[in-house]
Amino acid sequence: MRMYDLILKKKRGEALSTEEIRYMIRGFTEGSIPDYQMSAMMMAICFTGMTRQETVDLTLAMRDSGDRMDLSGIAGIKVDKHSTGGVGDKTSLVLAPLAASLGVPVAKMSGRGLGHTGGTIDKLECFPGFTTALTEEVFLHNVNTIGIAIAGQTADLAPADKKLYALRDVTGTVDQMSLIASSIMSKKLASGSDAIVLDVKTGNGAFMKTIEDARALAEAMVSIGTMAGKRTAAVITDMDQPLGYAVGNSLEVIEAIDTLRGEGPEDLREVVFALGSVMLQLAGKTSDGAAARRMLEHAIADGSALRKLAEFVGAQGGDPAAVYDTSLLPAASDTLTVTAERDGYVQRILAEEIGIACMSLGGGRETKESAIDLSAGIVLKKKNGDPVRTGDPLAVLYGNDAARLARAAEQVRAACKIGQTRPAHVPVVREYIDTVNKKTSIFI
Amino acid sequence: MRMYDLILKKKRGEALSTEEIRYMIRGFTEGSIPDYQMSAMMMAICFTGMTRQETVDLTLAMRDSGDRMDLSGIAGIKVDKHSTGGVGDKTSLVLAPLAASLGVPVAKMSGRGLGHTGGTIDKLECFPGFTTALTEEVFLHNVNTIGIAIAGQTADLAPADKKLYALRDVTGTVDQMSLIASSIMSKKLASGSDAIVLDVKTGNGAFMKTIEDARALAEAMVSIGTMAGKRTAAVITDMDQPLGYAVGNSLEVIEAIDTLRGEGPEDLREVVFALGSVMLQLAGKTSDGAAARRMLEHAIADGSALRKLAEFVGAQGGDPAAVYDTSLLPAASDTLTVTAERDGYVQRILAEEIGIACMSLGGGRETKESAIDLSAGIVLKKKNGDPVRTGDPLAVLYGNDAARLARAAEQVRAACKIGQTRPAHVPVVREYIDTVNKKTSIFI
Repeated sequence: MRMYDLILKKKRGEALSTEEIRYMIRGFTEGSIPDYQMSAMMMAICFTGMTRQETVDLTLAMRDSGDRMDLSGIAGIKVDKHSTGGVGDKTSLVLAPLAASLGVPVAKMSGRGLGHTGGTIDKLECFPGFTTALTEEVFLHNVNTIGIAIAGQTADLAPADKKLYALRDVTGTVDQMSLIASSIMSKKLASGSDAIVLDVKTGNGAFMKTIEDARALAEAMVSIGTMAGKRTAAVITDMDQPLGYAVGNSLEVIEAIDTLRGEGPEDLREVVFALGSVMLQLAGKTSDGAAARRMLEHAIADGSALRKLAEFVGAQGGDPAAVYDTSLLPAASDTLTVTAERDGYVQRILAEEIGIACMSLGGGRETKESAIDLSAGIVLKKKNGDPVRTGDPLAVLYGNDAARLARAAEQVRAACKIGQTRPAHVPVVREYIDTVNKKTSIFI
Repeated sequence: MRMYDLILKKKRGEALSTEEIRYMIRGFTEGSIPDYQMSAMMMAICFTGMTRQETVDLTLAMRDSGDRMDLSGIAGIKVDKHSTGGVGDKTSLVLAPLAASLGVPVAKMSGRGLGHTGGTIDKLECFPGFTTALTEEVFLHNVNTIGIAIAGQTADLAPADKKLYALRDVTGTVDQMSLIASSIMSKKLASGSDAIVLDVKTGNGAFMKTIEDARALAEAMVSIGTMAGKRTAAVITDMDQPLGYAVGNSLEVIEAIDTLRGEGPEDLREVVFALGSVMLQLAGKTSDGAAARRMLEHAIADGSALRKLAEFVGAQGGDPAAVYDTSLLPAASDTLTVTAERDGYVQRILAEEIGIACMSLGGGRETKESAIDLSAGIVLKKKNGDPVRTGDPLAVLYGNDAARLARAAEQVRAACKIGQTRPAHVPVVREYIDTVNKKTSIFI
C-alpha cells in the first residue's frame, strides 16, 4: 500500500477502505508518511468529501493512535460533555458540579484557553490553590467518593489528531465536516466515557456560522459516536453573542457561581438545563426530559449543586470559601465602562470580537506560551435585543493596564452593533439531535 | 502576504494575482514556504484550475527562479524543439542536424532518459568519445561555426520547476494541464531560444492519452509561449505505438542515421518533416509549408543532413566514422526473437510496455542513478495494422543477459496485441496548433 495511490484514489472521489485509512493514520503518526502527502490528501478530502464509514474509520484510527483512558474503575455511567467552543462559555463550570450532585459521575479532561475562546482549567485555577495535576489514583478516588474530578490532559490521547490538526491549521483544510467531526470525536472516544453529550455552537462567534452547518456537524458526530458504540447526543446552541454576560476567567467563575445559586443569566441557565437534561438521561437517571429538568432545578434550589462545587474545589487543593465569597477570586485593579453612542436596540454583539477584546485585556492567550491575567475580562450590560439610550453602559471592562483597557474598549465598542429596530429573538437552545438525521424532542 | 491565505483563495476557486504567484514561487524556492503548504495548493489547483493569466504568471515566475541562458551571441533565429516524451522517439537525432544543414542554428540543451522514455544525450553517447560537457565558449563557438551544439543541462534553469515537479510527483498532483504546461514552458523560456516548436505526444504511450487532452496541453503551451513573447507552435503526434521500429539507444541512433540517409520508417519521417517544416518557418527560412518540406527532403537526398550529423559528432569529440559505419556503435551480444502466437492483425503495440521492456534489458534507467546499457533494446518487426501469421517475428530483442532477455520477451509479447480485424489507420501527425484555440494548416 502506498500513500501516493491513496491520494489519487481520494482525488478521484473514491472511498478509502478501513485498512487504507488505518495505514494512512499509522504512517502519518509514525512519520513514515510525510506532511506534504498528508496535506495533499486533506485538500483532496475538502473537495471530494468522506463517506460516513470513512469518517468513522478515520475517527477510530485516530482514537487508537495513542493512549486510551480506562474509567472502568469508576462506578456508574460516565457521560462526557464537549463544547465546540465559544465566548463566555462557562457551561462546564455549572454543569459539572450540578450533574455530580445528581449522582452522574463526572470524570473530565479539560483544556486551557487559546485565542478568543477560554478554557475550563484556566477558570478553575481562579480558585486559590486549585490544581488539575492529579495522579490517576487521586482522579479516580475523587470521582468515586465525591462524584467529580477534572484533570488537565496528561495522557497522550489521539496524538494522530493533534498532529493532523496542526497540519490542517496551516494548509487551509480545517473547514471540512468529516475532518472536524473525526478530530473532536477521536479525543472524546479515547477519553473513556460511556456516553457523550455535545454542545455544538452556531452563529458568528462559533466555527459553524449557520444552523445548517452546525446541524451537519452535530449529526456527523452523533453518527460517529453511535457507530463507535457510545450513546451520543448533541444540542445545538446559539453563539451569535457571548453566552451570559461575563467573559474572562474570574468573571465567568462568578457568573457560574451565580447560576449555581439560581441567579444566573437566562441564556446560560437554558444551555445548562438543556445539556444537563441530556446528561441525566444518557446516565440513566431518568428517561423523561421534564423530570430531568425538575431534578436540575431542584439541585440548584436546595444548594446541593453549589455545595458540590465547593467540595470539588476543596478536593483539588482550592479554597472552597471562594465559592461563597467571590471577593477571594482574582480581581482587576481598574475598570472602564463602554457606553452607547446612540439610541436604539442592540442588534448584535459579535462574540469573536468580544473574545479578542478579552485577550487584549490579558484575559486570553495569543499563543500557547502567553501568560494569562485571570482577573481581566468584560461584563456585558446589554444583550441582543435590549433597548439602549445614548450614554447607557454597554459593557464594563476589567483590567490592570490603562493602555490595554483603552484598546479593548475600542474593540468592544466596535463589536456592539446598535440599530433602530429590535432584532428577532433567537432562542439559545436551537435543536436537539440524538441520532443521524433525526431531530428529537425526547431530551427537552 | 501569507501562503495560508493564498491556499484559501485558490481553494475558493479565485484567481491568484501576478504578485501572489511570484511570492509563492519565490518563497517555495527559497524554502520559506514549506512543502506541505505547496502540496495543499497544488491539490487545490487540481480541483479549481488556473486561468490563462495565472498559468503564464506561474510559468514566468518559475522561469525567473534561476539562470537564464543568453544565446544572443549566436546569429540567426534560434528555434528550440521539445517533445512531451515517448518511446522510440529519436526525432531530435534526425531533426537537429537536418535543421542545422538548412541554416537553422541548433543550440540545444538535452536530457538523459528515465523510466520508460529515452533521452537524447544517452543516444548521442553511443558515438565513441562523444561528450555533452561543453564550456559555454565551445558551445557558442560550435553553433556559430557548424550550426549545431547539444549540451547537457549545466545551468540552473528553472529550479522552482524542478523542486515543484518533485513535490507534485509524490502528491498525486501531476496531471493538471496548467501545471504541466507551465512546468515545460518555464524551462523552455529560460533556455534562451527565439522560438519554440512543441511535439505533443498523444496515445497510450504518452502522458496525454486522448487527442482532446493533447490539444488542451498544446494550446496551453502555445498560449504561454506567445504571451511570453516567443513565437510558439505545436504539432500533436501519435504515441499509441513506439515511433519507428527501434527502441533503445544504439538501435535508435542507427534508425536515425537510416532516416537521414532517406531510408527511415515512414512514421518517423512524417514526424521529422512536420516538426522540421514548422522549425524552418519559425526560423524565417520560408513561409510556405510545401516549400519547407521540399527543403527538408532535399537536404536528406543530397546527403547534407547526414554530413552535418558527422560534423556535429566530430565537433563534440565523437567518432564521425560511426555515422557511416554503424558497426562502430555499441552492439549487444545476444538477440531473442519474439514471434506471433496466432494469425491476425497487430491491433496495438503498447508503447509504455515496450519502453519498460527496453528498461528490463538494461537500455533504460529505473532510477537516476542506474547504469545504462547503450546496446540494449528492441527492434519491432511489425507495427499497428500489419497482418501477421503464427510464427512471424514481432520483434527482435537485443541484450547481454539471457535472464533479462527472457523477461523482456514476455513483456514485449504482452505488449503486442493481435486481433482478427485490421484496426483503422491513425496518421502519425495529428494536428498543428500555432495560436490559442486555432488549428492551422499554414505549417503543413
